[in-house]
Amino acid sequence: MAVEIASKKQYVDPKITIVGAGPGDPDLISIKGVNALKAANVVLYDALVDERLLDYAPRESIKVYVGNPSGDENFSQDVVNQLMVDYALNFGHVVRLKGGDLFVFGRGYEELSFAESYSIETDIVPGISSAISVPGLQGIPVTHGGLSDSLWILSGTDESGKLSGELKDAARSRATVVVLLGFDRLQEIVAIYQEAGRGRLPAAIIQNGSMVNEKVAIGLVNTIVEVAEEQQIDNTGPVLLVFGFAVELHRRFQPIRQFFELREYED
Amino acid sequence: MAVEIASKKQYVDPKITIVGAGPGDPDLISIKGVNALKAANVVLYDALVDERLLDYAPRESIKVYVGNPSGDENFSQDVVNQLMVDYALNFGHVVRLKGGDLFVFGRGYEELSFAESYSIETDIVPGISSAISVPGLQGIPVTHGGLSDSLWILSGTDESGKLSGELKDAARSRATVVVLLGFDRLQEIVAIYQEAGRGRLPAAIIQNGSMVNEKVAIGLVNTIVEVAEEQQIDNTGPVLLVFGFAVELHRRFQPIRQFFELREYED
Repeated sequence: MAVEIASKKQYVDPKITIVGAGPGDPDLISIKGVNALKAANVVLYDALVDERLLDYAPRESIKVYVGNPSGDENFSQDVVNQLMVDYALNFGHVVRLKGGDLFVFGRGYEELSFAESYSIETDIVPGISSAISVPGLQGIPVTHGGLSDSLWILSGTDESGKLSGELKDAARSRATVVVLLGFDRLQEIVAIYQEAGRGRLPAAIIQNGSMVNEKVAIGLVNTIVEVAEEQQIDNTGPVLLVFGFAVELHRRFQPIRQFFELREYED
Repeated sequence: MAVEIASKKQYVDPKITIVGAGPGDPDLISIKGVNALKAANVVLYDALVDERLLDYAPRESIKVYVGNPSGDENFSQDVVNQLMVDYALNFGHVVRLKGGDLFVFGRGYEELSFAESYSIETDIVPGISSAISVPGLQGIPVTHGGLSDSLWILSGTDESGKLSGELKDAARSRATVVVLLGFDRLQEIVAIYQEAGRGRLPAAIIQNGSMVNEKVAIGLVNTIVEVAEEQQIDNTGPVLLVFGFAVELHRRFQPIRQFFELREYED
């Protein structure tokens, strides 16, 4: 019996595939991501992943919940990295299934490098980025001829938790600006836009984009804090902020436009 | 017989689903995109789409090639819009399968609005953006702690064909800058970076990202034109430019780093 276990062990072929699950809707995962799950011995998944995706993995595979590595001290990035490698060395093919995006503030590269430092074979399967798709699904194209010719994606805070120093430049640019991880600092970000003289720029906030519990606030920089409160947007689940003229295309912007054309708006 | 056709006609339920096929690898389409194809009566696909994706559509469905709407005068955007609507009114569910991205210079919103102007039911299925995934698959994460805290995606030229006026600001920013549709103007874009004093910034060019015929040039702003020539990069297929410190993480950047640490580089 002991011999059997030993002989089984020597056939473990460690591999780590890092898969982006997309913005939330489980059907937005790619075919390649599904194929990786079907070939998994272990799936490590985090808080943003729809658990229905686990059904693609073999019944006998091990499913391990690793919380929210960026916010949950029980599952720090170091712990997740180590779990990923330990499972691969002991059980074979680990699929690290990540909610959101692998490469836009997704720490996908950190996990990849850690796995490679153990000389474990790795593969990556990019996901659909919420920064582009979530506004798009709401009818806000991040670029649109005549309204916005570029897209600037930022994090609200830097690694040390300070407000991103790049927001000031972004607020003065003509780009559509998408801010991830910024809802907790909304009032400060709004103040940066107001100081740049852009209080009347269209703005949107989207919580739980592409999911059934999605909430959307549409307004101007000067009104967006109030609209977000009216729409009861909070920080449960991912929230993104969108600033720029492309927000004008959202169907709920039309009454705002009419309102502000009727009265002179005090900036 | 005429009666039969008439009765068939009245059951046509026009619908248009705009699907992003992803950067090139056909397995990077989403499950939702595949499900749309399976339910298609007509598929309108363009030059950037891998034709193997058409196999998901029913055998009896109509497949229509519409070239490259942004470059091919036989299939201008107006012609594609009209074909899309005509097929929907006559045959039912049209899937408009688009290579690349729907909302980052993808004109997805224009096609959506056109369909809606005919009161046709529409749906959109976002794709994986090449601007993020193509560098990522090459080992260049568009954001990475300590190297780049934001991503700015621009088009090389604006709607009138002029070099984008935002490139000057982008060249001075700390963002990772990804330029789509800019390879034909590479030397001018390099000059903008050099004028901003950033000749030694790491830079990459990727042609046919995620596909078997992918080509990659890795260098500095000052050397990238030459490296692109060495790698025989040309404008067949999609090409994107990446500027920023995140390019340092590409495995082929290490010898460049060593070279420039050994000799004083003349900027």
